[in-house]
Amino acid sequence: MNASIITVGDEILIGQVIDTNSAWLGQQLSDIGIRVRKTWSVSDDHGQIIVAMQQALEETDIIFMTGGLGPTKDDITKKAIADFLGVEMYFDQPTFERIQKIFEKLGRVMSPNHHDQCLMPVGVEILRNSMGTAPGMLFRHRSKLIISMPGVPYEMTAIMNEEVLPWLSQSSDIHIYHKTILTACTGETIIETAISDILDEMPENIKIAYLPSIASVRLRLSGTGNSNDALVAEVEKYSDKIVSRLGEIVFGYGNSSLEKEIYNICIQKNLKISTAESCTGGAIAARLVTIPGSSAYFMGGIVAYDNTVKENLLKVKPETLNQYGAISEHTVIEMIHGVNAILKTDIAISISGIAGPDGGTIEKPVGTIWICVGNDMDKITYLLKAGKDRAKNIETATIYALDILRKFILKYY
Amino acid sequence: MNASIITVGDEILIGQVIDTNSAWLGQQLSDIGIRVRKTWSVSDDHGQIIVAMQQALEETDIIFMTGGLGPTKDDITKKAIADFLGVEMYFDQPTFERIQKIFEKLGRVMSPNHHDQCLMPVGVEILRNSMGTAPGMLFRHRSKLIISMPGVPYEMTAIMNEEVLPWLSQSSDIHIYHKTILTACTGETIIETAISDILDEMPENIKIAYLPSIASVRLRLSGTGNSNDALVAEVEKYSDKIVSRLGEIVFGYGNSSLEKEIYNICIQKNLKISTAESCTGGAIAARLVTIPGSSAYFMGGIVAYDNTVKENLLKVKPETLNQYGAISEHTVIEMIHGVNAILKTDIAISISGIAGPDGGTIEKPVGTIWICVGNDMDKITYLLKAGKDRAKNIETATIYALDILRKFILKYY
Repeated sequence: MNASIITVGDEILIGQVIDTNSAWLGQQLSDIGIRVRKTWSVSDDHGQIIVAMQQALEETDIIFMTGGLGPTKDDITKKAIADFLGVEMYFDQPTFERIQKIFEKLGRVMSPNHHDQCLMPVGVEILRNSMGTAPGMLFRHRSKLIISMPGVPYEMTAIMNEEVLPWLSQSSDIHIYHKTILTACTGETIIETAISDILDEMPENIKIAYLPSIASVRLRLSGTGNSNDALVAEVEKYSDKIVSRLGEIVFGYGNSSLEKEIYNICIQKNLKISTAESCTGGAIAARLVTIPGSSAYFMGGIVAYDNTVKENLLKVKPETLNQYGAISEHTVIEMIHGVNAILKTDIAISISGIAGPDGGTIEKPVGTIWICVGNDMDKITYLLKAGKDRAKNIETATIYALDILRKFILKYY
Repeated sequence: MNASIITVGDEILIGQVIDTNSAWLGQQLSDIGIRVRKTWSVSDDHGQIIVAMQQALEETDIIFMTGGLGPTKDDITKKAIADFLGVEMYFDQPTFERIQKIFEKLGRVMSPNHHDQCLMPVGVEILRNSMGTAPGMLFRHRSKLIISMPGVPYEMTAIMNEEVLPWLSQSSDIHIYHKTILTACTGETIIETAISDILDEMPENIKIAYLPSIASVRLRLSGTGNSNDALVAEVEKYSDKIVSRLGEIVFGYGNSSLEKEIYNICIQKNLKISTAESCTGGAIAARLVTIPGSSAYFMGGIVAYDNTVKENLLKVKPETLNQYGAISEHTVIEMIHGVNAILKTDIAISISGIAGPDGGTIEKPVGTIWICVGNDMDKITYLLKAGKDRAKNIETATIYALDILRKFILKYY
């Protein structure tokens, strides 16, 4: 079974609102084996809605529509559906009574606009909206389904979770299984080359997708089949092959993140961590504390943005700064010693570089970033050669630093 | 002139990635008077891309395509465009040389996949991609335009900002003038009520839009007219009225940000700033250093995540922590004294709170966050009562802290 999504509303087209509904629907449907083949975003325009419905019904079995069901004048999805199906509108008394009850509870009076919300195309099956006044609607049309819901995300997800998904997942008989492998600090092309022979032998019913973001690539295996257990076993088999080939660049699975993995191993091994940041200005520490409970292992850090802070607080020697400069392996090593001593931690991350866009030299161009992870005993240092974009450099350096911390712990603890 | 957007990629349809590109494009195009009428998201599928292109060209003058230009096998937009236009592919030597240079700089070797990135449909006009290897492409087809760009957001926005938007905005003849007023730490409803009489007297050709984000609301005035000078004067007149009504909650205009405004006033008044962060874990410092050149005023900071760091490094008195707790006005005041002394700065920001989702008490529920800005002479303290969502609390607290710093400087310097 495959589906399409039609999003109605000018606010999406002019970019005032980002369409998160389609991604949520795509994820939920894909989890129960329904493939979204296409999505449309159309204007609050009667003709455009009807054209999109025609195209969607030609190509797919189910249409999910969101938006255009509110009580204001520009919300016209319902009328467009009625005209598309060639049916009249009628006043739905149960809907009226439900809305009236909501208003009584709130101590408000229904407006004429809310009366309009009780007008329904003939043939509708009402989908209960536990979070708002506009009900969802289901239509059966020539062996296909049309499901229309409000565009407000929490109303749409409530209708899907309570009314639509339980019913759809029962009636589906294809199994789908996804496995996402998370990697850091290695390019998509290198990964693809490294595993190309495994991909060549992978059966037709398992597909791979590469989802790159800054300094990270997620590999998503998606399998379809009739028997759920056999499918899971087969996808897991190929996932294992890929993971064992890729080795330590794989840091986790699914919805994990570098900071979650670091949280887990630090808690497990009872390690205390600190940071000494120059060019990232606190971004590494800020990323670590996005995980609830990170105070159990992350003690804190020093943002040594100015060289006087490196010298006075972190005790980087003036000779080191003079001879090698702030952007040097020597400096990041001394920063490690300083911050571990001050914050009494087992391992520290330090970083110093030229984030850009200006400030580079021929010897040390913009994007030259030194990273160190370690303690008095052991250290890993790394010279990152990033680009010219300040925000991207800071994010890239942050991910590299976290990944080096992860590798350091795996190596030495 | 109107436009459509085609987003290519299974990762969008299965909801693994939220399509933020379309919203960004919708906004930018609407700024220069181009109306996005429809968007499509299609699979990495040759046939689907071509069908969407046919439909889009029937209905609109320009198609913006994003996605499907990367070096891996599932990226097939280029081939689909060539087939749609009925042209062959050729090897583009200048593109090859550009990619080769990027690889030389990085000290890497080009793979065969990167050679494929140099294959171009005949008739292409190359759009320079300053942020990645895959160039953007422009095609002129029967008086219409097709613009194809990579799906990676920072590459797409770079090509739009540097190559496409300047050229498109020149060729339009209706005058549009936007003025965006930036406010922080005040709700949309309060703002709307405060300026409702000004909005009532505003002429039909000027519209207002409220663009809320976390702890901020942007007010966007959009005027259309024939004479550019008269239009600008009229929009500016209403902008001035609104700004003088709203007072100090307005912190800037257009694409500015709190951190940019802080950079400007600190440089102008020659002030040195530091931070002492607990619950935000470095996010305030990280936000300040997003501005190039911030090392001229931002000395650094201390992430005092664990209470031992507040005590040992920032010299918060043990009695204070015992009697009032780490989340208290007394603690954030002592943090200010500590960090200003250590980093030798004129003004510091300090913050301590319960980011959540757990860790609250009846007296101090999750979301209780104390902020202080000041020095030995003067201080502003603020008790923020945020919600239960960790990420949102950290961002809200960061914006409040920056806004209080801005107000502190305006008041005392």
